[in-house]
Amino acid sequence: MSKQVSNPQTLEWQALSNDHHLAPFSDYKQLKEKGPRIITKADGVYLWDSEGNKILDGMAGLWCVAVGYGRDELAEAASKQMKELPFYNTFFMTAHPPVLELAKVIADIAPVGMNHVFFTGSGSEGNDTMLRMVRHYWAIKGQPQKKVIIGRINGYHGSTVAGASLGGMQGMHDQGGLIPDIVHIPQPYWFGEGGDMTPDEFGIWAAEQLEKKILEVGEDRVAAFIAEPIQGAGGVIIPPDSYWPKIREILAKYDILFVADEVICGFGRTGEWFGSDYYGNSPDLMTIAKGLTSGYIPMGGLIVSDKVADVLNEGGDFNHGFTYSGHPVAAAVALENIRILREEKILERVREETAPYLQKRLRELADHPLVGEVRGVGLLGAIELVKNKQTRERFEGKGVGMICRGHCFDNGLIMRAVGDTMIISPPLVISKAEIDELVAKARKCLDLTARAVLG
Amino acid sequence: MSKQVSNPQTLEWQALSNDHHLAPFSDYKQLKEKGPRIITKADGVYLWDSEGNKILDGMAGLWCVAVGYGRDELAEAASKQMKELPFYNTFFMTAHPPVLELAKVIADIAPVGMNHVFFTGSGSEGNDTMLRMVRHYWAIKGQPQKKVIIGRINGYHGSTVAGASLGGMQGMHDQGGLIPDIVHIPQPYWFGEGGDMTPDEFGIWAAEQLEKKILEVGEDRVAAFIAEPIQGAGGVIIPPDSYWPKIREILAKYDILFVADEVICGFGRTGEWFGSDYYGNSPDLMTIAKGLTSGYIPMGGLIVSDKVADVLNEGGDFNHGFTYSGHPVAAAVALENIRILREEKILERVREETAPYLQKRLRELADHPLVGEVRGVGLLGAIELVKNKQTRERFEGKGVGMICRGHCFDNGLIMRAVGDTMIISPPLVISKAEIDELVAKARKCLDLTARAVLG
Repeated sequence: MSKQVSNPQTLEWQALSNDHHLAPFSDYKQLKEKGPRIITKADGVYLWDSEGNKILDGMAGLWCVAVGYGRDELAEAASKQMKELPFYNTFFMTAHPPVLELAKVIADIAPVGMNHVFFTGSGSEGNDTMLRMVRHYWAIKGQPQKKVIIGRINGYHGSTVAGASLGGMQGMHDQGGLIPDIVHIPQPYWFGEGGDMTPDEFGIWAAEQLEKKILEVGEDRVAAFIAEPIQGAGGVIIPPDSYWPKIREILAKYDILFVADEVICGFGRTGEWFGSDYYGNSPDLMTIAKGLTSGYIPMGGLIVSDKVADVLNEGGDFNHGFTYSGHPVAAAVALENIRILREEKILERVREETAPYLQKRLRELADHPLVGEVRGVGLLGAIELVKNKQTRERFEGKGVGMICRGHCFDNGLIMRAVGDTMIISPPLVISKAEIDELVAKARKCLDLTARAVLG
Repeated sequence: MSKQVSNPQTLEWQALSNDHHLAPFSDYKQLKEKGPRIITKADGVYLWDSEGNKILDGMAGLWCVAVGYGRDELAEAASKQMKELPFYNTFFMTAHPPVLELAKVIADIAPVGMNHVFFTGSGSEGNDTMLRMVRHYWAIKGQPQKKVIIGRINGYHGSTVAGASLGGMQGMHDQGGLIPDIVHIPQPYWFGEGGDMTPDEFGIWAAEQLEKKILEVGEDRVAAFIAEPIQGAGGVIIPPDSYWPKIREILAKYDILFVADEVICGFGRTGEWFGSDYYGNSPDLMTIAKGLTSGYIPMGGLIVSDKVADVLNEGGDFNHGFTYSGHPVAAAVALENIRILREEKILERVREETAPYLQKRLRELADHPLVGEVRGVGLLGAIELVKNKQTRERFEGKGVGMICRGHCFDNGLIMRAVGDTMIISPPLVISKAEIDELVAKARKCLDLTARAVLG
C-alpha cells in the first residue's frame, strides 16, 4: 500500500493478497503495487476498514445489502438452518422445507402469473439457466431453430461465458469470446448517446432497434430479448419515459420471450418488488440474486411464468441444475430477508420517503461545475462528470471517475465509477440523515475532483 | 406422492413443490405425479425425511458433506462472520480478512507451485473462470489463437453453458447447445468401453486419444486439456493404472495447460487433499467446490499455478468475476471446514483406515449375481449392474439402476444411479460400523433389485 498504515495487520493481510489472492475484475500488477484496502466490519450503512476508517457504503456492498449490515436475524436464520440441515440437494425427486417455502414466498411477491422458481447460486448462473431453459422451451414447442437471444450493448448479465456474452461489455467479450446466437442492440443511454434527439425521441429510437434486430435475424430464429429494467453496472442508465412502452408494443407483435434481469432492480431497489413492476413490464422470465438474500449468503435464481412452466412440464427431463440450487441455508436466509423487507415495510419507506428524498437531494448536485446530469430512480443514482455541461463533452482519458472514486474512499464514502459516471445504490434502510451525509460527502469529493482535474 | 403419508405437512410441502418449484435435473411432470421426498434434518452420516425415515447418506449430499452433517462449529463460524461482516465485494482494490486467510490456507494444502486462488460461488463458475482465464493467458502470451479446450466424453464440469460444453454429457449438449472451440475425447471407462483390451491396454489407448486430438486440432490452437482425476457424475470412472502416466507423458510434449477438475476429488475424497496428489499429476489449474465448505454454504474457485499467475500479472485487467467471489461468510465456513479436516486428521483416517475398509467391504458385493464390477478409490465407489457378469451385457432399457436406487431409498440408504452404475461417495467421517451398515443395505437392495428384474 502506498500510504502509511497504522495497523500492522493491514500489511500482513496485504501480503496474503499479493501472494495468494486473484481478485475479481482487477489488474493484478496494480493491486500488488497499491495493496487492497481491508474491510473488517460493517453495521447499518457503514463499513470499517483495518485502519479504523468509517465509510458510508453508497453501493450496498455491490447492489446487494438491501436490509443493511449487522442484521443478526439473518445470522440466526443461517445458524439455525445449518444446525438442522446444512445441505441437501434438490435433484432426484427430493426437496427440503426452506427451498419450497421460499419458492412460495417469491411467487407471492412476483408479478401476476410468475409462480415458479428455479434456484441457482448467483445471477450469472440464473442467466445461464435462462439461456438453457429458453432454448429447451422452444425445442419442446417444436421450434428448435429459435435460439438467438437479443441483449443490449453495455448491458450486464454476469461473468460466466454465457453471461458475459449476453451482456454487452466489449472488454469482457475480448477475454473469453462471444458465444454464437447472441446479438446486441444499442442501449437507451440518452446522456451518452442521445445526440441531438430529445430523451423521448431517443427512447423511441432505441426501442425501435429491437424491432429492427428481430426483423434482421428473423422472428423464427429469435428466442428471447433480455434487458435490465435499469442497467446497473453499465452506469445506472435510466431509460427515457418513452422506452419501455415502445418496447412493450414491439414485444406484443412478435412471438419471442421477454427476460428481465432483475439482479439489481429486484427486491425493492425502485421502491417496488421488481423493476418490472416499476415500469409496468410483464416479463416471461426474471433473473434474481443480490437483494434476494441481501448478499449475506450467495443465492440467485430464475422466476418463471406459468406460460413457460406449462411448456417445461411437457418436455421430459430438463438437464440442468447446480449442486447448490435451492441451498437450504441460503433459502432460510432469503426467507428471513424477505420477512424483514415486508414486516419493516422497507419498500413502502423507500417509495414514499427515502427515494423521493434521495432523488431531490442528489439533483442539487447538478449545479456543480463538473456535473453534466444527475439521474436516478428509487435508491439508484448516477452523476455524470463532464468538461462542458452544455455540450456534454467529457474529460477524455483523464480517468476523472477514478479520481473522484479515490477522493470518496479517502473521505468516508463509497461511490462507484463507471467511466466518468459516478453511481450509487445504498442499502434500502438508509435514513434521511444518512442521505444528507452521503450528498454532503459527494459534493465535497466533487470539489476535490474539480480541483484535481481543473487545476 | 403415490404412497401414503403419515405427516400431513409432507403433503403441504409437496403441494408447494408442485405449484412453485422447478427442481434441477428433473422431469417436472413426473415430479408432480410422484411428489418429492422432503428431507428435514441431518446428523453425522444420516438424513431424516418428513415421514420420520432415517437414511444413511451414501452420497454426502452430492459429493460435498465431507465433515458430515450437524457440525455446529460451521454454523458458529457462519453466524460469527455474518454478524461481523456479512458481505463485502473483493472488486475495486478491496478485500477482507476471511478471503485472504482462506487463499493462504488453500495454497498451503495445494500441490507445490499452486499458490493462487480465484474464488467463485460454485464449481460451474470455477470452470467458466478457467475458460476465460486460459484464453486470457494465451492472449497475453501473444497466442490468442490458442482457444480450443479438450474435454472428455462423459466428463462433468458443471451446468452453465460453458460448463455443460466442457463436460461431455450429450443430454446437456442437446439442451442449450455446445459452444465453439471445445472438443472431446473418449473417457477411460474400461468396464463400459474397453472391449477386448486389458484395462492397461485400454488406458493407454484412451490416453493416446489426447495426443491424436492435439494433432488433429493443431497444438497452436489448443489452450488446455480439462479432466477430473476420477470422473464423478459420469459414474465414478476409475482410470486404468496406465492412464494418467501416459497422459502426463503426452502433456509434457505439448505446450498446453492442464486443468484438473477437483470439484469431487478435492478436499480429501481420495485420502489425499486432491485427486491430482493421489495420481501424481501436476495440473496448471484446479477447479474446486463441494468439499471446500462441506456444502454448508455455496463456494467454489480455481487454484492457479505460479506459472499462470505470473503471466496474468502482466496482462492488465482481467475482466471477470462474480459478486460473491470470495464471499466472507463462505470463506469463514471454508476456513473452519479445513481446520476440522486438518485437526481431526480426517484425511489420514480415510487413507489409513476407512478407505481401505470400504474398498474391501464393497468388493465383497462382486459375488452378487447382478454385479459386473465393483471399483473404487478412497471413499468413492461404483457397482456395475449387469445381466451377464462375464460378457458385461446390460439390461437394456430396463432402468435397473433407478429400480435399485428406489429400493435403496425405501430401505434407508442413498446410492445414486448413473444409468445402471450405482455410485457412492459417503461423508469422509463415516465409521467402519457405518460402512458395514452401508454395505449390508446395499446387498439387501441388490437382492430386491435382482428379484424385481430377474423375476
